Formats: sequence, C-alpha cells, structure tokens
Amino acid sequence: MKRTCVKDALNAENSVSEILVKGWVRTKRDNKGFSFLEINDGSCLNNIQVIVDHTPEIEKILEKISTGASVSIFGELVESPGKGQKWEVRGTGVELLGAADPETFPLQKKRHSDEFLRSIAHLRPRTNKFGAMFRIRSELSYAIHKFFRDKGFFYVHTPIITGSDCEGAGEMFRITSLDHESLSKIKKEEQGARDFFGQESHLTVSGQLSAEMYALSLGQVYTFGPTFRAEKSNTPRHAAEFWMIEPEIAFADLNDNMDLGEEMVKYLINHILETCADDIGLFAKFVDKTLMDTLKNTLDNKFERITYTDAVNLLQRCKKAKKFEYWPEYGHDLQTEHERYLTEKHFKKPVIVYDYPREIKPFYMRVNDDDKTVAAMDLLVPRIGELVGGSQREERLDVLESRIAETGMNSEDYWWYLDSRRFGTVPHAGFGMGFERMLMLLTGVTNIRDVIPFPRTPKNLEF
Amino acid sequence: MKRTCVKDALNAENSVSEILVKGWVRTKRDNKGFSFLEINDGSCLNNIQVIVDHTPEIEKILEKISTGASVSIFGELVESPGKGQKWEVRGTGVELLGAADPETFPLQKKRHSDEFLRSIAHLRPRTNKFGAMFRIRSELSYAIHKFFRDKGFFYVHTPIITGSDCEGAGEMFRITSLDHESLSKIKKEEQGARDFFGQESHLTVSGQLSAEMYALSLGQVYTFGPTFRAEKSNTPRHAAEFWMIEPEIAFADLNDNMDLGEEMVKYLINHILETCADDIGLFAKFVDKTLMDTLKNTLDNKFERITYTDAVNLLQRCKKAKKFEYWPEYGHDLQTEHERYLTEKHFKKPVIVYDYPREIKPFYMRVNDDDKTVAAMDLLVPRIGELVGGSQREERLDVLESRIAETGMNSEDYWWYLDSRRFGTVPHAGFGMGFERMLMLLTGVTNIRDVIPFPRTPKNLEF
Repeated sequence: MKRTCVKDALNAENSVSEILVKGWVRTKRDNKGFSFLEINDGSCLNNIQVIVDHTPEIEKILEKISTGASVSIFGELVESPGKGQKWEVRGTGVELLGAADPETFPLQKKRHSDEFLRSIAHLRPRTNKFGAMFRIRSELSYAIHKFFRDKGFFYVHTPIITGSDCEGAGEMFRITSLDHESLSKIKKEEQGARDFFGQESHLTVSGQLSAEMYALSLGQVYTFGPTFRAEKSNTPRHAAEFWMIEPEIAFADLNDNMDLGEEMVKYLINHILETCADDIGLFAKFVDKTLMDTLKNTLDNKFERITYTDAVNLLQRCKKAKKFEYWPEYGHDLQTEHERYLTEKHFKKPVIVYDYPREIKPFYMRVNDDDKTVAAMDLLVPRIGELVGGSQREERLDVLESRIAETGMNSEDYWWYLDSRRFGTVPHAGFGMGFERMLMLLTGVTNIRDVIPFPRTPKNLEF
Repeated sequence: MKRTCVKDALNAENSVSEILVKGWVRTKRDNKGFSFLEINDGSCLNNIQVIVDHTPEIEKILEKISTGASVSIFGELVESPGKGQKWEVRGTGVELLGAADPETFPLQKKRHSDEFLRSIAHLRPRTNKFGAMFRIRSELSYAIHKFFRDKGFFYVHTPIITGSDCEGAGEMFRITSLDHESLSKIKKEEQGARDFFGQESHLTVSGQLSAEMYALSLGQVYTFGPTFRAEKSNTPRHAAEFWMIEPEIAFADLNDNMDLGEEMVKYLINHILETCADDIGLFAKFVDKTLMDTLKNTLDNKFERITYTDAVNLLQRCKKAKKFEYWPEYGHDLQTEHERYLTEKHFKKPVIVYDYPREIKPFYMRVNDDDKTVAAMDLLVPRIGELVGGSQREERLDVLESRIAETGMNSEDYWWYLDSRRFGTVPHAGFGMGFERMLMLLTGVTNIRDVIPFPRTPKNLEF
C-alpha cells in the first residue's frame, strides 16, 4: 500500500477508510487504554495526530516508541473531535521502523538554541523551525526559476572553477590537484602550468562576466549557483559558500535594471507568502514579530530611488548624522548604519541608491555622462541592508579598455570579454542578489548559518 | 518604446502598426532599392526578416551593417508575402547599435566546426546550434525542478566544499586559501589545521550523503548542483565540472527508486519535446537523424529491468560475446560496450540493471538478503550508456557500520551520517543523474564540451 504524506492527509476532502502514514514521532502521550502520537514526515509544518487503542501487541510496540522514532501507521482517516486539527488517524496497525533512544537522541521536546542546532545540522531539519526554513528555501529557489522563465530569461550555468580574478569582488579560494609533495617542491611560478588546468585556478566569486556573454547572445539570462569568498570574517552575515542569482539583460539600461530588481523582490515575497503561509507563520510568530509588516510594507510601496550623491547629502544633513559611527562622505561606500537609516528611519521602505562615484566601483560599470559616476545601483532593504547590487555595463569598447587600464589589470586576460564589445555590442545591465539574504529578509532570521543546510565558515567544515 | 522580442513577434496574432525589434544581424542581402535583414535576438531559433527601403540616410547606416552587428529596427509587423515565415517587419527606422567588422568577426555565414566553436565559447551561443543547445539546457533545468516540485520533493543545496572524501566516487580537487609560500613552508600534516577551514577541504563529488540527512527529515528531496572530478581523462564524456541531480526518497525501496528514475527520464524527454520543438528539430535534422526515433522509443516503452547476474549471463551467451573487447564477467563493472549491447541490440530500449555484487559498490548501498549483492541500479540508455546510477541505502546501523569497517574507512568521520541510522532510521533510496548526459541524450550531441557553456577539462580553463 502506498503511503499518504501528512500534508495530503491533512488536506483531505473526505475521510479515508484505509490510510498508511509514515514519519517521525514528535510526541507520544499515553492515556488509559489508548495513546496519542504526533507524526511529522517533513511534507509540511503540521503533524498528524494518531490515536491508537491499546492491545497487548500494540502496547509492546508503543513501549519502544519515543520522540524521534520512525513509524508506519495503518488506520482510518477520520474527522478529529479535538481542537486544532480537522483530521486525525485512528491507528489499527503500528510498526516501529527505527527507534530513537531517549537517552541519546538530541532533539527532545523542548526549545533548543540555534547555536546548539548548528552543531547537529544533520538533524536540525527535523525541528519545526528548520523544517520550515528549508521548505521555504526550496520554494524560493523554484520561485526564482519561475519568475525568470515566465519573463523569457534563460538559465545559464556559469563555471564554478575560474582562471580569472575577474572583478576583484573578494578573496578567492585556490583549487589544485597537486599533492602536498608537489606543492612544496615545484616553484611558485611553475605550479600553475603543472596543475590540472595548466594555470592557476580559483573558485568563482561571480558568474557575471560569463553571463554577459550569454545575455549578448540569448538576450536575457540569469545564473543561480554557488559562489565563494575566502574571507576570514566570522560574522552573522558572511559565509564562505553561498548562492547567488545574477540576471543579465541585453538592450537594457539602469532604469530597466532597477525595475527588474524591484519586480523580482516583490514577486518572490508574494510567491512565498502565497505558497508557504504556514512555514512563514512560524517565523512571524516565534522569530520576528514585525516580519509580516516588513514584508507587506515592501510589497505595497514603490521603492524609493535616490542618487548616491543625494543619499550622502541627506545622510549628512539628517538629525542622526552626528551619531553615525562613520561620517557619510562622498567617495566612500555607504556603511550598514547608513543603509539602515535610509530604509528604516528616513524612507521607511526599500531604497535603490544609484549613480555611484566611479572610483569605488568595478571596471565593468558604465561611466555616466558626468564622467564622475557610474550607472551602479544598490537595492537596500530594512534590517538586511544591501540585498541586490548591479549596474548598467560598459558597452563601449574604448571606454571599457581605458577603465581596465585604469585599474591596472591586463586587458589581454579579458580578450573574450572585450570581444563582446567588439562584435555587435549592445547596452545591457544586470545585478546580483544574495540568495541567503533574501531568505533572511523573508524569515527574519539574522544569522546566515541558519538559512544554509550545511554552512561553511572559517574553521568550520563539519558534515 | 519597449522592444518586442523576436519570438513574440513571430507568434503575433495580428499585424502591429508600430514595433521595435532589437537583435543581431545573421545576414544582410541588398537588392535594388531595398535590403533584407535577418535578425536574431536569442529568444528563439528563428530569425525575423526585416525589409527596409533604401533612403540616402538608411543606406549610410546599412553600409556599416554586416553579419554579427547589433541593430534596433523600428517599423510595422506585417504578413510576409515570402515563404518560410508568417510575419516580417517593414523597417522604417534602422539604428546600428554595434558594428562587427567582417574582417575579424569569427562567426561568418557558414558552417563552423565544433572544435573551432569551442575556441570561441563566448560567441558560440550566437550560432543556431549553440543557441538551441543552451535554450534546451535552460528548459531542461526548469523541467527538473518542476518534476520534483510537483511530486512534493524539496530542493536542497548540499555543500560544494567538503571535508570528507565520502564515497570515493572519484579524484577530488583540493581547495586552499594558503598562499604559495605557506604551502611550501608548512608541513604536510599541519597544512589542514592552518588552512581556512582548519582541516583539508575538497570540492564535492556528490551531494548524496548530505541529501540523505534531508530526506530523513523532509521526506523527499533532491539536489541539483555542480560536482567535480579531478580526473585527467580527456574523453568526450568527461568534464572536471558538471551538474548532477540527486533525488533521495525516504520510505522507499529499490523498486520505488527504479520507478522514479524511469518516470523522471520520460517526463524530461516529454517536456522538452513539447516546449523546445524548434530547437530539438535542429538537432534531429543536422546532428542525429535517428534522434526523434530514439526519444520516442524511450517514451513509448517500459524500461527493461534485469538483475546484474542475468545481464552478465545474457552477455556471455549472446552471439556477439566473442567480439567484446572485455569479456563480461561476474564481479566486474559492465563496460560501455556491454551496456550499449543491452540497450541498442538486445532490448532495443532503456534497461535498468540492478542487484550488483557488493564488492564493486560503495558502502552505503543496502545489502540484499543473499548477502552477496546490494540493491544498486544503473539506468542505461542507447548511445549514452549509464544515465542514472543509484541504490537503496543501507538503513541498518549495524550493517552500515560493518560495511564502513570492511572498506577500511574510519566510522568516526561519519558520525553524523550514522546518527541518521541511530535515530529514527527508515528505508530510503536515491540516485544520481548526470545533467549533461541527459542533454546529450536529448540532442544527440556526442561531446560533453558542447553541452556546457564554458567546459572545464584538463589543461583547459579559458573564459
């Protein structure tokens, strides 16, 4: 007989005379003559309640069942007379699949700290909170693909292993197939040539440059894949391995880019509120009481758009200015405290800051007519700060070449990138969104370690 | 004015008095008094034909337009009197966005070899063949997500950077954040501890063990991400970086696993035939004339299921047996020639071989009651050989521990994996499918380098 997943059982339209449910026991309560079992199989947040009458045989099995055990229940799906659920299972057959010794099973029926749960990342998805988190993570991934596909974008798998330190977006991990002995014996200058790829190789920090090649062929594309930073900053916002979404649009300027970013953020929030109501409800109730307000506020308002120059002026003139740890100064990146002031205090909604000084932005961003700024944009949201960062790309070959020279890079390393401006170049734009930051916005969770199944951070590679 | 993508223009229901089309010129033909332009913007295989009457102004612009140039065309969408297309654009405004010098632009209007196109992987998606390929690749990715989501599976991002050589599936790349000097000075035994993660770290060869933890929490999950092999085999079937799909199902046995694999393969083929008819048509016409027959044959037949033992016997007794390069012998892996004989000659359809000798399979596969074989399965398809490989997983703690010991591994390294069998273990199963192999099956393309945007192979890290 085929098992019915708990989600489907709870959503049944009618009673079912024979049903098979399997899952893990969350609680067991014994009464005189019968027992209650709460069963969860991960298909949804809610458990299904099972009532089994005691027979000598069943009592023997029930003795071995405790929180965490896996069971198979055969019975009837009937309307529940109790509160809190529409349906329950009257179990007539109970099978213990796998016990969980209450002396050693770490997930007992009580609240565990996030820190503790990180130390058992292989078991934490069996809790309500992390089950909900990773169902939302899955649905958010799907929503991203659906959003872009519906708009005619193509998904491109840009390479993870790369030979170029493209945009200097951060410290890179190096990869090698040489063994220790070779690494210590071969001269530094010769190691690349002797290594697997015949040159030095690293883990990508961004798929953008590759994605641009595809936007300039297929029109509209996006990447969605893992990216890496070898930065030893042990903060709640940084991980060495995280996922990023990078759309790239041909025939588009900075305004199109801002429109796409805003539309995407709203679409994703809306999709998750509609498809993951129960799971989001858990976070709104137990993690961040303001969550629903923040999300609805984001959905209901047009995002503010302000130039970097105006933003700096506003920050310098605001009442809080003297209390900032860092004085907001033209020519410097905005600090998180500045970003939060703009979104949380001043505009009270998401803000897109655009047209940044060219000196503080990478070579590929398009130089504006003022020759001082580039067509960059950062989309800031309350609590998180920067959620999306992007730009119109420099499509003019001569300007791009001089920008590469300015930054001291070698334009020969970018021959293929420059080719795209040499042959049929077109205005285009794109951005990157940190997937985990979007998840943090959606759930109110403040530590990136709690939105990644098995997070990778300095000195931490368990599981 | 907003541009209309070529796909939408070609699918128009009515003529459009004002339309803006942008794209790259595939060909230009000048006639007396007017010119034809074939424009492609990557949204679909087909070009849109543009006719522009010559005016002195337009002629000046047309002079600079050649194959590969990017243009913006304003005009009217009208029914085409010519053959081969329903609609064409009567252009009244022509703008050159970016020229492409015919002396240097490598993609002229002629057939280029796959080898040559690999050397310009940044431009090859501008050809019909590779445009089609990477649109199919995108749609196939979507189909995978849709298939699993519709069946209630959750998508899990398993880690790329790993500390364990889990299943010994292949040679691994090592990753490090130490610089050359440190690597040459620090003793081998101390390098791990001094490195970013405080231990040796590698690129993953499979997300399975992590995915199992999630199946044993959320019920049904799958991974879809990049995996890596540091194997220096320079063959048309191997790449150092490729994408893999790995579903993992709780409360499932080997039969459920075979059913899922067969259902998935058929769903994906069907989805692509329905959504990418034009692009697949190109491959059926120019790459593999038997493509449609192969795909339809796969769709229309129940896959053969045969034990490894029966398959070996069959191979030993078949007429071709003496012509095999390798004698089919019990206890050895099937060779590609054997797999192809089974699918192409004997059964003339896909074949699932199951129950392999335990000695030639990894520790995590479930030992059968005969104690000789494990509940493994390989799904073989014509032309490709192994497309899917999987197994029921060993859910019995004691058996798993002794299998780990058998293979000489250290069970302490797998404490978390064993925990899942210690606490509420359940029968479960899963498999891996090479994404690129599926693409090769779908398109008839025989070199893996031609189904990956920027392939990574030994001594090759360009782009």
